[in-house]
Amino acid sequence: MGDSTEQSKSALKKAEKAAKMAAQKAEKAAKQAALPIQSKKDDIIGITAKKGENFSAWYQEVVQKAEMVEYYTEISGFFVMRPNTMYIWNTIRKWFNERIEAAGVEECNFPMFLSSTSLQKEKDHVEGFAPELAWVTKAGEKDLEVPVAVRPTSEAVMYPYYSKWIRSHRDLPLKLNQWVSVVRWEAKQTVPFLRAREFMWQEGHTAFVSEEQAGKEVLEILELYAGIYEQLLAVPVVRGKKTEAEKFAGGYYTTTVEGYIPSNGRGIQGATSHCLGQNFSKMFDITVEDPTNKGQKIHVWQNSWGLSTRVIGVMVMIHGDDKGLVLPPRIAKTQAILIPVGLTAKTTPEDKEKHLDRMYELLAILKKAGVRTEIDTREGYTPAWKFNDWEMKGVPVRLEFGPKDAAKDVVSFARRDTGEKGTIPIGELTTKVPELLETIQQDMYNKAEKTFREHRVKITNWDEVVPALDAKNVVIIPSCLVPACEDRIKELTRGEDLPEGPDGQKVPSMGMKSLCIPFEQPEGLVKGETKCLNPECGRLAESFCMFGRSY
Amino acid sequence: MGDSTEQSKSALKKAEKAAKMAAQKAEKAAKQAALPIQSKKDDIIGITAKKGENFSAWYQEVVQKAEMVEYYTEISGFFVMRPNTMYIWNTIRKWFNERIEAAGVEECNFPMFLSSTSLQKEKDHVEGFAPELAWVTKAGEKDLEVPVAVRPTSEAVMYPYYSKWIRSHRDLPLKLNQWVSVVRWEAKQTVPFLRAREFMWQEGHTAFVSEEQAGKEVLEILELYAGIYEQLLAVPVVRGKKTEAEKFAGGYYTTTVEGYIPSNGRGIQGATSHCLGQNFSKMFDITVEDPTNKGQKIHVWQNSWGLSTRVIGVMVMIHGDDKGLVLPPRIAKTQAILIPVGLTAKTTPEDKEKHLDRMYELLAILKKAGVRTEIDTREGYTPAWKFNDWEMKGVPVRLEFGPKDAAKDVVSFARRDTGEKGTIPIGELTTKVPELLETIQQDMYNKAEKTFREHRVKITNWDEVVPALDAKNVVIIPSCLVPACEDRIKELTRGEDLPEGPDGQKVPSMGMKSLCIPFEQPEGLVKGETKCLNPECGRLAESFCMFGRSY
Repeated sequence: MGDSTEQSKSALKKAEKAAKMAAQKAEKAAKQAALPIQSKKDDIIGITAKKGENFSAWYQEVVQKAEMVEYYTEISGFFVMRPNTMYIWNTIRKWFNERIEAAGVEECNFPMFLSSTSLQKEKDHVEGFAPELAWVTKAGEKDLEVPVAVRPTSEAVMYPYYSKWIRSHRDLPLKLNQWVSVVRWEAKQTVPFLRAREFMWQEGHTAFVSEEQAGKEVLEILELYAGIYEQLLAVPVVRGKKTEAEKFAGGYYTTTVEGYIPSNGRGIQGATSHCLGQNFSKMFDITVEDPTNKGQKIHVWQNSWGLSTRVIGVMVMIHGDDKGLVLPPRIAKTQAILIPVGLTAKTTPEDKEKHLDRMYELLAILKKAGVRTEIDTREGYTPAWKFNDWEMKGVPVRLEFGPKDAAKDVVSFARRDTGEKGTIPIGELTTKVPELLETIQQDMYNKAEKTFREHRVKITNWDEVVPALDAKNVVIIPSCLVPACEDRIKELTRGEDLPEGPDGQKVPSMGMKSLCIPFEQPEGLVKGETKCLNPECGRLAESFCMFGRSY
Repeated sequence: MGDSTEQSKSALKKAEKAAKMAAQKAEKAAKQAALPIQSKKDDIIGITAKKGENFSAWYQEVVQKAEMVEYYTEISGFFVMRPNTMYIWNTIRKWFNERIEAAGVEECNFPMFLSSTSLQKEKDHVEGFAPELAWVTKAGEKDLEVPVAVRPTSEAVMYPYYSKWIRSHRDLPLKLNQWVSVVRWEAKQTVPFLRAREFMWQEGHTAFVSEEQAGKEVLEILELYAGIYEQLLAVPVVRGKKTEAEKFAGGYYTTTVEGYIPSNGRGIQGATSHCLGQNFSKMFDITVEDPTNKGQKIHVWQNSWGLSTRVIGVMVMIHGDDKGLVLPPRIAKTQAILIPVGLTAKTTPEDKEKHLDRMYELLAILKKAGVRTEIDTREGYTPAWKFNDWEMKGVPVRLEFGPKDAAKDVVSFARRDTGEKGTIPIGELTTKVPELLETIQQDMYNKAEKTFREHRVKITNWDEVVPALDAKNVVIIPSCLVPACEDRIKELTRGEDLPEGPDGQKVPSMGMKSLCIPFEQPEGLVKGETKCLNPECGRLAESFCMFGRSY
């Protein structure tokens, strides 16, 4: 055992070095990709990288050319969020806010800075964030007496006030949420949406009188997170619990929704809902009198839960194709784009005007029916150019209207997701277009769900694990759930032939890690009999656990 | 003249020192005020300071006891925004967003950091912010190669991208807005909402092909800002233009809405809408081809405009009274509070239950009618205690319901703003309560408007200026609008008997400064004849200008 550990340690070091170099290369590539886009008119538009060949270059091109983000060249690891992104984020925000407000959650806004003194209070929790804290040490020309850190998360900012505000069980439950930016100065290579040094999120922080109430909320919030993925973003997720090794530092237990990126077979953490137990209430002295036991103080039970703009990156990676972004209709700022076709040099100005007038009528009809529609009447661009442009931006439905369509009282459509084409009688636009959008939403989800299902493989023979990973699967295996065993599994599943990372490099350092213990357990695990699948581990399996190479 | 300047310089120094000491004292007082509030049950609730006696202590007590803010004791100058504040801010956000979206403004989110290198580009503009910049110099344990500053405003963050995105006049107008926090590490004493080291705001940044288009938008936005004050917050404002001395650093001209705090007679800048002209587009090289003059490049015309949570502080200061907060109904999270009364020790449990059931019916009826209503059925508190509690929190209408009311099929009401009482037949609740709320909204505005109007005094005799200020007025005087003259006016109007500042101190350093050149000019200024009112200034007056002691 000693030797093999030594060996794996040396392999680990080598792998880390390789990963670091790869990251540096990739950062350079990212910066190059961030060079000014040429003026629209001159440009050969469209995505030049292929999703299947160079996934990371493809992704970087898509998020920039679809005008979702811009690389902030002034400071590396930061990104500008453009209106196409903000529309999606605001749709998510509204959907989630409505539901948590109905559950009694109220909005707050705490300062963005933490003093180094208050950080001392909860060392365990903060240890994980310490290497990534951004420290303000100067104001103007003056050094601050006590440096302050930009929040990486707000437990240490908020809970002193929970201690102040919660004086009696009548003050419970206390449920607060804030929509803010947090900063984690990542040393790892950054990727738009997935890993950035600053990102937007919501963080909910709640307190209850009992474990039962807290536990109930943890799952309710997790279900809302699943809803954002499944219902809004058409992205399937697996609900589960994190293992001890992967749970939130300082918390009691962590629940999670886990996604899957087919292009590289990696798992990705979608959003987490934590039960903090009484760990923080003990650190921050948040107590109430026990309602069932007068005179006795009890520490409150706390949760925290967060969802970030990462969701948007997952959506892009899953649905996009070689033409660019593919947006699920429910979160598309523009759901349908009307494009005039068949107008030639021979068309008289009067006929053209009449034709466009008709199209503006169609636009009004569709808007009135609640379809977020735009019309592209830009001069100097061919219909084909416009088709490419809107496809790149992911608009779910293209509606073409030419003199031939007009003669037949129809509109021609093309679906962004499948390319399927057809016609819709003008009289049926107000029902057929919304139906079509719902069909697209459903089909996109179904397709992604099928892919994830087919690549989530239950394995009970260790030798099949690495081949399954290499075939871009995540695996569900019997596990003892012990952190040391997970570490060893990570080492044992490192290989040379790994799928390409978001940085466009083969990343030899990546073994598989535990993603979650799915709530929905496969059959076949016999407690007290089934062994942990790690061949070096003698322990019994506690559950099936989902493992994978991951972000 | 030399001597008087020397004298005034020395006076200035003395005054500055006194102000600094006062600020320190006040900070201490603020921290004391921020001590834990006692448990609700034991507490003698209500505001202890009197608005007319110690305005600043009163204000600090109100914003804390009405649960709007909490002092962030960890780092001075920062405040926690609680749900009562966020409700107001979100109402404003929604109202404003709807209107700017209709005008084609889109939402974005730029990084919160500025690199020191990009700051070099626009020195003029940045000079004003330099002493207040918060510098991140370390990430984890490592020093950053190039320190980065937290944005105090985002011109320097955003405009490099405007230069990239604006390639042709077809890309214009470009209209972006973001809702973010900004940091300005104030050395001056901070006041919740009015002056904080971090505050929430929106900042709009737009670009146009012509001065005319930019100028039109400047005023449209200003009118929206006025609408937020007048229509939502029931706060009157004066619309006008800033003088050269007071305009936005680096801009072309600044328009503003100016408010007035009756308790101390100070003016307060409400929100500003700037035309930046071509100053920034020249610095950041934002050009398009002139559509009317092929081959010629023109620099775009830019605006920026911002409104911060300061609006909330102004509203509190104007409407609040000795009982606490008074909220205009349109922005009140709770518009009406239902309180059971007349239930005594003799009331049987059955009668009590029946009575409360009836009240829950009333609650449902009111909610259905769109009135944001809550019911206070807390046990162990007297109706009088509850009245005080909800009055302190500013709820516009109290609805009392006791057995006597029930017998007469009425609900008794009390207005928070005037204390007026009466009854409403239950059958008319759904029309009368909304009407009452609208009446309160209007009356609150009218009262504040009358007060401002009466304390906005046109003066054409210099000797009347200081007495007018001491009588808590702002003054409208003929002015040459020259910055040096404004400086001198500030010195000449310093005095010893000034109204008390927000810090509870007599602030001897405060002379009057120009607030704005009102768009609505009084009569009586003859161009080329009327002199500037400053007795030491020989120049002719350009306009009437509003001056005042101010925040």
